[in-house]
Amino acid sequence: MSNWENRPAWLRALPRPVPAELETPAAVAAWEAGAYFENRQISVSFRREEAMGEAYAIAQTPSGYEIGGGEAGLMYGAYALIFALETGTPVPRGVQKPYYALRMLDCWDNMSGEIERGYAGRSLWFEGGKFSYEPARIRQLGRMLGSVGVNVLCLNNVNVHQPAQHLIDSLLPEAASFASLLRPFGVRLMISIDFSQPIGDVGTADPLDERVQAWWAETAKKVWAAVPDLAGFLVKADSEHRPGPNTYHRTHAEGANMLARAIRPYGGKLVWRAFVYNCMQDWRDTKTDRPRAAYDLYKPLDGAFDENVILQVKHGPFDFQVREPLSPLLLGLERTPMAIEFQLAQEYTGQQIDLYAMPPMWREIFDQMGPERVSAVAAVSNLGRDGCWTGHPFAALNLFAYGLYAWNPQADPETVIRAWAKLTYALPENQTAALTGMLLNSRSVYEKYTANLGLCWMITPNSHYGPNPYGYEFQAWGTYIRADRNAVGIDRTESGTGYVNQYPAELKALYASPDTCPDGLLLFFHRLPYGWVMKDGRTLIQRLYDDHFEGCARAEAMKKTLESLDLPEPDRQEARERMEAQVRNAREWRDILNTFFRRFSGADDAQGRKIYD
Amino acid sequence: MSNWENRPAWLRALPRPVPAELETPAAVAAWEAGAYFENRQISVSFRREEAMGEAYAIAQTPSGYEIGGGEAGLMYGAYALIFALETGTPVPRGVQKPYYALRMLDCWDNMSGEIERGYAGRSLWFEGGKFSYEPARIRQLGRMLGSVGVNVLCLNNVNVHQPAQHLIDSLLPEAASFASLLRPFGVRLMISIDFSQPIGDVGTADPLDERVQAWWAETAKKVWAAVPDLAGFLVKADSEHRPGPNTYHRTHAEGANMLARAIRPYGGKLVWRAFVYNCMQDWRDTKTDRPRAAYDLYKPLDGAFDENVILQVKHGPFDFQVREPLSPLLLGLERTPMAIEFQLAQEYTGQQIDLYAMPPMWREIFDQMGPERVSAVAAVSNLGRDGCWTGHPFAALNLFAYGLYAWNPQADPETVIRAWAKLTYALPENQTAALTGMLLNSRSVYEKYTANLGLCWMITPNSHYGPNPYGYEFQAWGTYIRADRNAVGIDRTESGTGYVNQYPAELKALYASPDTCPDGLLLFFHRLPYGWVMKDGRTLIQRLYDDHFEGCARAEAMKKTLESLDLPEPDRQEARERMEAQVRNAREWRDILNTFFRRFSGADDAQGRKIYD
Repeated sequence: MSNWENRPAWLRALPRPVPAELETPAAVAAWEAGAYFENRQISVSFRREEAMGEAYAIAQTPSGYEIGGGEAGLMYGAYALIFALETGTPVPRGVQKPYYALRMLDCWDNMSGEIERGYAGRSLWFEGGKFSYEPARIRQLGRMLGSVGVNVLCLNNVNVHQPAQHLIDSLLPEAASFASLLRPFGVRLMISIDFSQPIGDVGTADPLDERVQAWWAETAKKVWAAVPDLAGFLVKADSEHRPGPNTYHRTHAEGANMLARAIRPYGGKLVWRAFVYNCMQDWRDTKTDRPRAAYDLYKPLDGAFDENVILQVKHGPFDFQVREPLSPLLLGLERTPMAIEFQLAQEYTGQQIDLYAMPPMWREIFDQMGPERVSAVAAVSNLGRDGCWTGHPFAALNLFAYGLYAWNPQADPETVIRAWAKLTYALPENQTAALTGMLLNSRSVYEKYTANLGLCWMITPNSHYGPNPYGYEFQAWGTYIRADRNAVGIDRTESGTGYVNQYPAELKALYASPDTCPDGLLLFFHRLPYGWVMKDGRTLIQRLYDDHFEGCARAEAMKKTLESLDLPEPDRQEARERMEAQVRNAREWRDILNTFFRRFSGADDAQGRKIYD
Repeated sequence: MSNWENRPAWLRALPRPVPAELETPAAVAAWEAGAYFENRQISVSFRREEAMGEAYAIAQTPSGYEIGGGEAGLMYGAYALIFALETGTPVPRGVQKPYYALRMLDCWDNMSGEIERGYAGRSLWFEGGKFSYEPARIRQLGRMLGSVGVNVLCLNNVNVHQPAQHLIDSLLPEAASFASLLRPFGVRLMISIDFSQPIGDVGTADPLDERVQAWWAETAKKVWAAVPDLAGFLVKADSEHRPGPNTYHRTHAEGANMLARAIRPYGGKLVWRAFVYNCMQDWRDTKTDRPRAAYDLYKPLDGAFDENVILQVKHGPFDFQVREPLSPLLLGLERTPMAIEFQLAQEYTGQQIDLYAMPPMWREIFDQMGPERVSAVAAVSNLGRDGCWTGHPFAALNLFAYGLYAWNPQADPETVIRAWAKLTYALPENQTAALTGMLLNSRSVYEKYTANLGLCWMITPNSHYGPNPYGYEFQAWGTYIRADRNAVGIDRTESGTGYVNQYPAELKALYASPDTCPDGLLLFFHRLPYGWVMKDGRTLIQRLYDDHFEGCARAEAMKKTLESLDLPEPDRQEARERMEAQVRNAREWRDILNTFFRRFSGADDAQGRKIYD
């Protein structure tokens, strides 16, 4: 079915499978170092210091290295050392510790075996309503996660479909077995729960009802008895038709705190997603503005959450679009622990067909937000049962890099990408540089041909791949561009929806005027006529055309770059096939968006390039 | 699960289930008449005359009636007599015989239990990859079909998915059992086959390969041994990714004739669908025009088909849109037997939620075409496992009426609708009239708010319910409206795609000029500026607005009419709920289309009505 054993992604230097008998990260560290350094005339020793926990420090010794750290720290140190030697980069100096204690991978795996918004094949652990996996492959998965420092895996989709409700009762023993495969790599399980689940037993899910509280307390007791190191529960409530506290006229704080109290005795975290908005919006209603929704809901609740609640906030106010401003919630809450949520699965960003390396985006986001604003990170997984694990072999970069950013939000994008490239492929230096450069620019390329100037949602409804500029225009999802013959974009300033008021003063001032608003967000915040003159002197319509032409031309150039790389098979073939699709896709985007906007605006391209009628 | 026994649709006057032991239409005739006339002081006798076949004649006798006819004719006569008495209309005089010998109902049932484009629940006879049905319900189905004169039921979807391929081998005994339930009602089975099926045994499906010919001959022998009265095979080949003779560079005549010869010894008909077009069209390509496809393909093959081939042609050149011109193939072939295909399933016409009575459309079509142009009729079924059989209880009208039009293509729409209404509901005369009038106008209402002036395909992609005027605009299906800031519509005249040249001279002349082209097809044949002055003096854009407003207002008026009817439950409740949805839907269509066209045209409504920005 798959050749995953031979597709070690960034673990190329560690070809031997980890033996099944290793039970702890320290044992993994010793074994990995033993295997790697065996024939390298370098001796590595370990110094265990429990208090260091996940942190580690690597010291040079006359014959090699000494790694100091806690249980997990020893393992992280071992991988860091191996990766540094493999990539020819300096061995980290001083104590290294993760910036975020909770580094979560959210898997949207359904027990049917399908993965919601999965682009790398079926689930690695569910099939036909049951657990179904190769233990060796799950160990390898644990190793991949451990090697980059991800320490929590949420097992099941936030949209909890039957029979995933039973992961906290009848399926607990199997969940516990599964957890034991990941535990040696410092990875703990988390489970997505269904807020309404007590209804079956006690007739209600009202968080203020004592029977409901008792039900969850009893459930938590059983769950943690089976999986004592479970990281916590993840909850999507009152969102896109999921049940939640609103059903009972309770606040989200009341709903989340009730669950948090049930799991607190066991050290569990209650991760509560803030992805809540009116998904039944009337397109005629220009007052309601989906990006406002989360701030409007949660800002008044700031400080009302228990301390083991984490509010998980998507990085932008919409839903993982190519470019969105930072969610104002991330800047606005002062007394609520938050996790920032990314999406490795490229739902709107090329679906692991088109290249889309995320490090530059993450760096921008962390720089703008300040990494201290949140206390945890989460990312929707891009993994699946495909041979290369991630659909496109290069998409593994995003998983690798996510782990590194969770340790160091100020990591340099180019350094991270280059590290992945060197670990994954043994290419000549000029080719490593070419691959790194191509990936470093890939988001910018994708943005140019699909969503320039902040015009998101011009994507095919439901599938979310390929252009359909008016496909979402009249739907209930709050996703409009409102293009007409004169203008395009949404006025989100005070004279419009007022969304800009949710930002701190400095950012508000920046975004509020089209003269200062960054080009990449111009039409996100402003409705402007096609003839609007941009900062660079070009008109808005010309800039729309230019970016679409440029993005597509750069995609075509990426194809040439790819063809120049001596990748191993099957990566070479897979990457080329997907690049063919990307270039086809880019041409569709270019031509459809250009035609769409010319049909509205009537403006010809200043350079006389082909725009179809 | 369902209360179908109590939902006799138009069989209200025949409440007792037909006993399982009746084996022939003549036996059914005798039993139905016996049950109906038992307490009515009318004596009915039968005179069998084999040569009359499906025809019948009803003679008045001193004490009642004598029905003369062949085996099936006696049954048709019995139902006709009962219906005439029930509706208070004259008993038919003289010999009555069906206009078309083959009156097919094509069921798009998959063996999974799903029905492709089914809006009345799951399959009545398949579930979970197997036959699964209530014999009594299938008998009642046979009775429904027999009572209106439908005489062939094609068992499975034209898109043949596994395991439906085995209906002609391992599943034959079960198909034969199923056939025996319909046979007493004069209904014969037909089976949709997969052109590529011989590949598994002989490695090719090339129609000129002797092994393939032998394979089909052997298969036909087995099939007709199991179901001796099987009506034939239905084939969708080289269409929407189905396999076909083009794979082997053979013509459709070569493909169809090969199959026809295999089944000819058993009197089987080979029904070959003409729904063939390029479903991978590039939207940039304005030369390719989907409506041209079937004529371009089949006109050169006219006369090349064996005599037991029937070419099944959809009534319009697209795909069951609200309004299309007649398929030019129906007017253009001279030496090829054809069936005209209708779609009772309201795929694009409201999905058995919105009211859409088809008799007025069929009458228009038959009048324009001349019923003698085709030798058979087919209709895609609107049936399913719902309690009322057809999703909306009123949608049963279309099945009822289809049978009547297959007997008499010149039937009067109002008379047919009234007959169904009287048979189905015992309403006071003024309410029967109101119901009849509402249904009679329902297509016109639906057309006004969804697809006026011949602008079809402005529908939500894939689901085909609700408005999305640009949803299909840049897709590969050949379905474009090409609206821009100046004009809308497709030029299909000689200066455009040349499609109009496929029509006989008189029609061509009519359609070729926007001055003579009927309003209902204006933008189907012409691309016109928004300011174009229509025959009634209004501008094109104003007419677009006016029709959308009018259609919606008439939908709202239909809701009032419906509320005035004393329908029995559950029909009353079901009809009202669906009417709520229709009115919501109509408002969406009105507002979205108006906004869409105003955003392009910039034109305000002359009457100052609300058009959203």
